[in-house]
Amino acid sequence: MQFAKGHGTGNDFVILPDPEGQLELSARTVARICDRHAGLGGDGVLRVVRSAVAGPAAGDWGRRAAERGVEWFMDYRNADGSIAEMCGNGIRVFTRYLIDTGLANGPELAIGTRAGVRVVREALDGRLTVDMGPARITGRGAARLGARAVSGLAVSVGNPHLACVVDDPVADYDLSAAPVLTEGDFPEGANVEILRLADDGSAQMRVYERGSGVTLSCGTGAVAAAVAAAVAAGEWLNGAERTWMVDVPGGRLAVTPSDTASLLSGPAVIVARGELDDRWLAEAPGPARRPAAVSALLAIG
Amino acid sequence: MQFAKGHGTGNDFVILPDPEGQLELSARTVARICDRHAGLGGDGVLRVVRSAVAGPAAGDWGRRAAERGVEWFMDYRNADGSIAEMCGNGIRVFTRYLIDTGLANGPELAIGTRAGVRVVREALDGRLTVDMGPARITGRGAARLGARAVSGLAVSVGNPHLACVVDDPVADYDLSAAPVLTEGDFPEGANVEILRLADDGSAQMRVYERGSGVTLSCGTGAVAAAVAAAVAAGEWLNGAERTWMVDVPGGRLAVTPSDTASLLSGPAVIVARGELDDRWLAEAPGPARRPAAVSALLAIG
Repeated sequence: MQFAKGHGTGNDFVILPDPEGQLELSARTVARICDRHAGLGGDGVLRVVRSAVAGPAAGDWGRRAAERGVEWFMDYRNADGSIAEMCGNGIRVFTRYLIDTGLANGPELAIGTRAGVRVVREALDGRLTVDMGPARITGRGAARLGARAVSGLAVSVGNPHLACVVDDPVADYDLSAAPVLTEGDFPEGANVEILRLADDGSAQMRVYERGSGVTLSCGTGAVAAAVAAAVAAGEWLNGAERTWMVDVPGGRLAVTPSDTASLLSGPAVIVARGELDDRWLAEAPGPARRPAAVSALLAIG
Repeated sequence: MQFAKGHGTGNDFVILPDPEGQLELSARTVARICDRHAGLGGDGVLRVVRSAVAGPAAGDWGRRAAERGVEWFMDYRNADGSIAEMCGNGIRVFTRYLIDTGLANGPELAIGTRAGVRVVREALDGRLTVDMGPARITGRGAARLGARAVSGLAVSVGNPHLACVVDDPVADYDLSAAPVLTEGDFPEGANVEILRLADDGSAQMRVYERGSGVTLSCGTGAVAAAVAAAVAAGEWLNGAERTWMVDVPGGRLAVTPSDTASLLSGPAVIVARGELDDRWLAEAPGPARRPAAVSALLAIG
C-alpha cells in the first residue's frame, strides 16, 4: 500500500492513493496506520480516489461529484477509523498531494467530499485556500475550563463551535480535560475555541476538539474564531469581509468568514512518500491498541 | 533521504540508511523528522551506517567496532536531536531492518553502539534478544509521584533507575509529571519504574523516562524492573537466572537480568519504507517547533 504523509498547520494526515477505488480500508486498518507509535501516525487518513469509483464509503457523494465532473474525492477518516465529512486542513493537504504528483492541475480544483463539492485554490506562494461554506451564529453559550468559566458565541461551520474571546493569554486556559458546556444549545457537543485578539487584526487561538482533545490546529475552529473576532469588532455581515489571521499552535491560518462562503487559507506540506510494509499490514493485531486507548494510557501518565 | 519506520513494543523509530556515512544529520533535522505532527514522527532516529565510516557522531566507537570486525553501527539520536548511547528497543528494530533488507545476515549479529558492541539474536518466531550488559544494584531510593510516595531499588543498567515494586494496580500511580526523587543517590536523575508482580512470574510495569516522560516501553527500565522482581522473589544472583515477562503499555518483553549480561527479548517490526520529501527537508523552518515544545503545548492542554 502506497502512502504519503503531510500536514497543514500541524494537523497531519496519512494520504493513501487509490485512484481506481480498489483499496479495502477497514476502520481497524485506518486506526493501525494512524497509531503514532505502532503505526505511521496521523490525525486521520485521506484516501485519494476518483469520484466515480469512490465506493460505498463515499455514500452518494461520490456519484454526485462525478456527475458534476469533479474527478477526485476526499475519503477522510478519523484516526480511530470512523468516517468524517470534511476537514479544512485535510483538504489543503489532499490538494497539495494531487498537484505535486500531477494527478490534477492547479491552481483551482474542485474536490468531492461528504459535505459536498469544495473548491480549493493554490496561490503563487503555495498557500491553499478552501471554501469552508457558510458560517452561522446560532446563539450564545458558556463553558467551564477547569476552574474558569468562559462564554462566547455558538457558531455552526457545518459542525458546532463555542468561540470565546478572552482578555488574558490563551495559554492560561486549561484545555487538558474536555470543557464542560454549561449554557447554550449544543445537543451534539461542540468544539471550544479560546481566542485573544491583537491590535493588528490577528488572533491567537487554542482549541479543544470534540472527540479529539486539544489539537495543534482546527480549520472549522479557525472559521468560528474569525466569526467571533468579526462580531467583537462590530464587523460581522457588514459587507467589509475582513480577513483575520488566526495563529494556532501549529501555525498561521487566514480566514475570511462569511455566511455564504468562508475562506480558509494556509500552508500544506508533503513530508514523505513510501510504502507500508505488507507483512505489517497483514499481521494479526496483538491486544487491541487503538490510538485513543494508547493516548489514554499516556494521558494517565 | 530514504527512511524506514519501525517499532519495538511501541517504542518507535525513524531508520535512516546511510551505509557509506554520507548523511549530514543535524540535531535540527532529527528533531524535524521526529516531530509527530509536522514531521514523520518517532521516539528517535536510528542512522544505519558502516562502523568504519560512522564519522564524528560515533566518537571513537565506530573505529573500535570496525577494528573488531563489526560491520554496522547504530547511530542513535533522541527525538530532540541529542545523542544517545544505546536503546534496547531501538537496537532490535535496527537489527530487524538489517536482516529484512539483506544488509546483514542473522540469526546473530554484533552491532556497534556508543555503549560498545552489542550482540543481537533472532529467534525462529522473529523475536530479537539483545545483551543489555550488566545490571547492578547501587542502593535504595524513594520518590514522590503526585501525592503518593514509593520506594524501591536503585539499579544501574548503564543508566540509572529507581525500580519500585507495588501492591496495587500500576494504573493507579500518577506519572503525568516527573517523579520527585526524594531519597537515594541519583546525581543525574533516574528513570522510575512502577511494577506489580503476578503469580505467574510476570510483572506489569509503567515507566517515567528521565527527559522523555511517560512512554509505552523502556528496554533498560524492563531490565531494572526484572532485577527488582528477582530481588523480591529472593532470586537475585542465586544462579537461577529466571526470565521475567515484563508487560509494558506497548507490549510484552522477556528479561533475564544478570550482573554480567542481561538479556532483553521482544518483537521488532518494520511498518513502512519510503523517502522524505526533498523540499520539506530543505525548507527553512517557521517558528522553532521542536517536539518538546509542541508536547508542552499539548500538555498544557
